[in-house]
Amino acid sequence: MDKSLNTADIRVGVVGLGLMGSCISVALAVSGHPVVAVAPIEEDLIKAPDYIKQEIAHCADAGLIQNDEQKIFNRINITNRYSDLHDCSVVFECVSEQLKIKKTVYAQLAEHVSNDTVIASNTSALPISLLQQLVPHPERFMGIHWAEPAYLTRFMELTCGQHTSYDIALKMYELAHSWNKEPTLLRKDIRGFITNRLMYALYREAIHLAEADVVSFEDLDKCLKHDMGAWMTFMGIFRKLDYMGIGDYEKVIRSTLVSLCNEESVPGIMQQKLKENAHGTKNGNGIYSYVNGEAQAWEDSFAQFNRDIYNLAKFYPSEKTKNATLK
Amino acid sequence: MDKSLNTADIRVGVVGLGLMGSCISVALAVSGHPVVAVAPIEEDLIKAPDYIKQEIAHCADAGLIQNDEQKIFNRINITNRYSDLHDCSVVFECVSEQLKIKKTVYAQLAEHVSNDTVIASNTSALPISLLQQLVPHPERFMGIHWAEPAYLTRFMELTCGQHTSYDIALKMYELAHSWNKEPTLLRKDIRGFITNRLMYALYREAIHLAEADVVSFEDLDKCLKHDMGAWMTFMGIFRKLDYMGIGDYEKVIRSTLVSLCNEESVPGIMQQKLKENAHGTKNGNGIYSYVNGEAQAWEDSFAQFNRDIYNLAKFYPSEKTKNATLK
Repeated sequence: MDKSLNTADIRVGVVGLGLMGSCISVALAVSGHPVVAVAPIEEDLIKAPDYIKQEIAHCADAGLIQNDEQKIFNRINITNRYSDLHDCSVVFECVSEQLKIKKTVYAQLAEHVSNDTVIASNTSALPISLLQQLVPHPERFMGIHWAEPAYLTRFMELTCGQHTSYDIALKMYELAHSWNKEPTLLRKDIRGFITNRLMYALYREAIHLAEADVVSFEDLDKCLKHDMGAWMTFMGIFRKLDYMGIGDYEKVIRSTLVSLCNEESVPGIMQQKLKENAHGTKNGNGIYSYVNGEAQAWEDSFAQFNRDIYNLAKFYPSEKTKNATLK
Repeated sequence: MDKSLNTADIRVGVVGLGLMGSCISVALAVSGHPVVAVAPIEEDLIKAPDYIKQEIAHCADAGLIQNDEQKIFNRINITNRYSDLHDCSVVFECVSEQLKIKKTVYAQLAEHVSNDTVIASNTSALPISLLQQLVPHPERFMGIHWAEPAYLTRFMELTCGQHTSYDIALKMYELAHSWNKEPTLLRKDIRGFITNRLMYALYREAIHLAEADVVSFEDLDKCLKHDMGAWMTFMGIFRKLDYMGIGDYEKVIRSTLVSLCNEESVPGIMQQKLKENAHGTKNGNGIYSYVNGEAQAWEDSFAQFNRDIYNLAKFYPSEKTKNATLK
């Protein structure tokens, strides 16, 4: 796969047509691929066409496509037959996060896809090195994790398992740029993938400060929204370091690192919320509480923000090279 | 100071008219305050009027003010006399981060301001509890840290020192909302203030992953820009937790926390850059390298982004309550 790759020539498969799988099928079709979308669950097979049409309409609303909704829809072959995947170069597995179910799906794939097909799991919960044990060609198995909505997010996490061919991973990393992504390649399969790890490092320190009564949760959120949020979309933390210049900060760094929280147990507030079966905006009980439609207002507002930040970000420099091995 | 406070009735002072002090003077004048702007350095006194006019023009460009540039300028009394501060309710100290210099300034303030005047340091490097020892009324001394450009950022960090009156801090927190800020109140004076601490927690984990050859610096930045950056401006990490629902993540949290980096020494790459006297975009040597005007392009582009993100953020929900004690 080189710069001249033509997505129209690369047939891809998606297995699992829940919300995520349908959305990924649309993202791939919008990028030009012919898509074989397999629904192993009868109910998904019935619902998929409508849901996919709706997602394609969202793409049109967001300005991603013009006057070609039907053409995009026609690129997606919705089916319940694994055998339709036989000439796919890549198959994206988007089924439930249960090992037993994934195992059944991989057994079906083993029967129907070719020896060259790359199998990519959308998992964000199960280690790639573990899933890899369930396929006959582990070197062609990896994680490709999409963020929602799949056609409107630039983030994408590619993960090598212990036995993934680095060469194949690099080819998929290259291909991912055709999907309008700014992909991230994890060369090793680590706990929590990458975003979770970075997030938990942040949560650990922030929760520690709130629990030590230094600052409220609300003020922490304000600080993150209006400080970090004022540049993160633009440059990430290492570009920011270059912008600030690290030179002046040695003393601050040295004294701050030794005082950061190193707790390894789940923070009190998280334990409490887990006990309360708090589902945040879903049941109104979270770090904040939600009454009178507030949760819905946040959800609607976020859907709009997704579109706005996507449109804003495209005017700004993207990382120039596509070289995963940059140091 | 209650909700009916009128900034036109509250005279404020700024001491130190470098870039930051000039910019803060403009932000306060735009918010309606009469401002006494003291330049203890002769050179600053000469340059200040032009610089302040230029900043006011920026405010007009950004749509913060309309047709009243001269009126805003007239609100700022540029002077070199500390005695002009005699009827100021709050004085913002924005001089160099050297203890000796700050000490001299505080001695001057002690002579000229009233017993009710709140003194707020813009320091981001020196502990408030330490500076507080240099004033006759430590209960009326605190940190108020502005982000640049002061009139166009919503972030503001208020910090109590060991002897700051919590009551006075809350009043200043309330007043800060009149400056179009979403302020953060630190009830205790902690190492690295708040943003630095949260940032270093993030840097520690990210650098660890890069140094362990799991992922490149460039890919880490992409992941932060396009994942975290896609929602941080909208909601902060605790609202995000509510949105995701913590319930499903117990196992992931538990296994991730124990594997996070707890290093307390300055990371290798930072030590190396400190040794190289790397100033990032300023001298082209940073985590990335910059040639042929790239550094300038990033700076220009960021100035534009500042305006865009400010304008985008204003359409989205702000934290509803102004209650610093929310838990």
